[in-house]
Amino acid sequence: MNAKEFRKLVASGGFNKPTAGYCKGHVQTNMLVLPKKYSNDFEEFAKINNKAIPVLEIIHNSYTSKILANDANLLNELPSYNIFGNGTLIKQVNSMEEYYTKDLVFFLIGCSFTFENSLQEALIRLRHIDQKKNVSMYNTNIKLNKVNMFEGNMVVSMRAIKKDKVADACVITSHYPKTHGSPIHIGYPQMIGIKDIHNPDYGDKIEIKDDEIPVFWACGVSVQHMLENVKLPFAITHTPGYMFICDKKDKDYYV
Amino acid sequence: MNAKEFRKLVASGGFNKPTAGYCKGHVQTNMLVLPKKYSNDFEEFAKINNKAIPVLEIIHNSYTSKILANDANLLNELPSYNIFGNGTLIKQVNSMEEYYTKDLVFFLIGCSFTFENSLQEALIRLRHIDQKKNVSMYNTNIKLNKVNMFEGNMVVSMRAIKKDKVADACVITSHYPKTHGSPIHIGYPQMIGIKDIHNPDYGDKIEIKDDEIPVFWACGVSVQHMLENVKLPFAITHTPGYMFICDKKDKDYYV
Repeated sequence: MNAKEFRKLVASGGFNKPTAGYCKGHVQTNMLVLPKKYSNDFEEFAKINNKAIPVLEIIHNSYTSKILANDANLLNELPSYNIFGNGTLIKQVNSMEEYYTKDLVFFLIGCSFTFENSLQEALIRLRHIDQKKNVSMYNTNIKLNKVNMFEGNMVVSMRAIKKDKVADACVITSHYPKTHGSPIHIGYPQMIGIKDIHNPDYGDKIEIKDDEIPVFWACGVSVQHMLENVKLPFAITHTPGYMFICDKKDKDYYV
Repeated sequence: MNAKEFRKLVASGGFNKPTAGYCKGHVQTNMLVLPKKYSNDFEEFAKINNKAIPVLEIIHNSYTSKILANDANLLNELPSYNIFGNGTLIKQVNSMEEYYTKDLVFFLIGCSFTFENSLQEALIRLRHIDQKKNVSMYNTNIKLNKVNMFEGNMVVSMRAIKKDKVADACVITSHYPKTHGSPIHIGYPQMIGIKDIHNPDYGDKIEIKDDEIPVFWACGVSVQHMLENVKLPFAITHTPGYMFICDKKDKDYYV
């Protein structure tokens, strides 16, 4: 199924699962939707924290994507949305049509799924994909750079990489600077404030074998974590794992 | 001082120290000199272990370099030579002229010093350079691929890198595939058979601070370690740290 057909299926209510592994080779993104009055500050916040929040497209006065997916309707072509009020997750919905006003600004944000194909092509096995699970994600003590009310700590995704493939994983992912790029940390979870590697804050628990090293990449879920702290009156995101699937291909973001 | 002048100083006996930090920007190499009857097997051994033994130039029927340094005399333009007999270091000398015969073949082998400038330019501090010490090197349990009598375990160099610069260090050094390239291991010394990180097998002991990760690169000293095991009747190497300084620049080996 191509990306456009997949999004139409989603819009019709025919798909309501995490999107990992679907439309292989196509970019998947995070989404944040904010009232206009906060959008300039968030844009600046994303820019100076672009390892964690790499913005691929911003949409004003519209709800359709132009750059990432030709005329995709962002109100119902993602499988699930999180509605936030005052920093609290109020509701999960399959369409955000009833919340739309012209006052909203849409940010589409790069996701590390984009480089996973390249890792696998280099014979780097990814256990969460092999086991059809979600990647493990953790809160850290790495502070994002503050812009006015926007602040928070980075969330990271973790992949357990065979000890002799770690450098290759760094090099491969460095070619995708718009989807988190090279790892933010390698090897010692406690050095970035992760107390229990076996207990992720988001996603699934994934085993780390004796000959593997935990490798950590900056993660777009940093935005969701930020929202819980900043307590904007209103915001919408995709539900983690239920991403926006784009027409753009992973290789379009290879540098 | 340019590289040619430096080598002339060495040949005249006016320099007898480790070469790290001299002729900055110029390639420094390891050297191995073997009787012709062993050279084909060693060439094959180096080829299939080229992460550890990247051969940059082979010289038959002569003692002068053509590719790396225009007409440099390899018999006296290195500051110190190790003479091996039956796997034992017999003697260290400042000139190998008296040992030369037309039967000898010279191998010049890439060295990780070549990428250290690039690391420093990326603001990655290298403590052994800051402290004017030799890099720490260790024997490992990583087996080299065997070719006839040639076999052995890899020797690695270690640099302690700030936790948030490790991925950068992988990416930068990956651009120098002919001088060991990206790291062979990151983070856990015991995973590659290093029992005591504070007690290197070669070079100097270098501190690892709490916010640093030990990063390991394949090392040309693997050749010296191999010689101790293989026990050829006769072989000559540079003395570790007392390298051959080339006309070629580090950037000539940037890919």
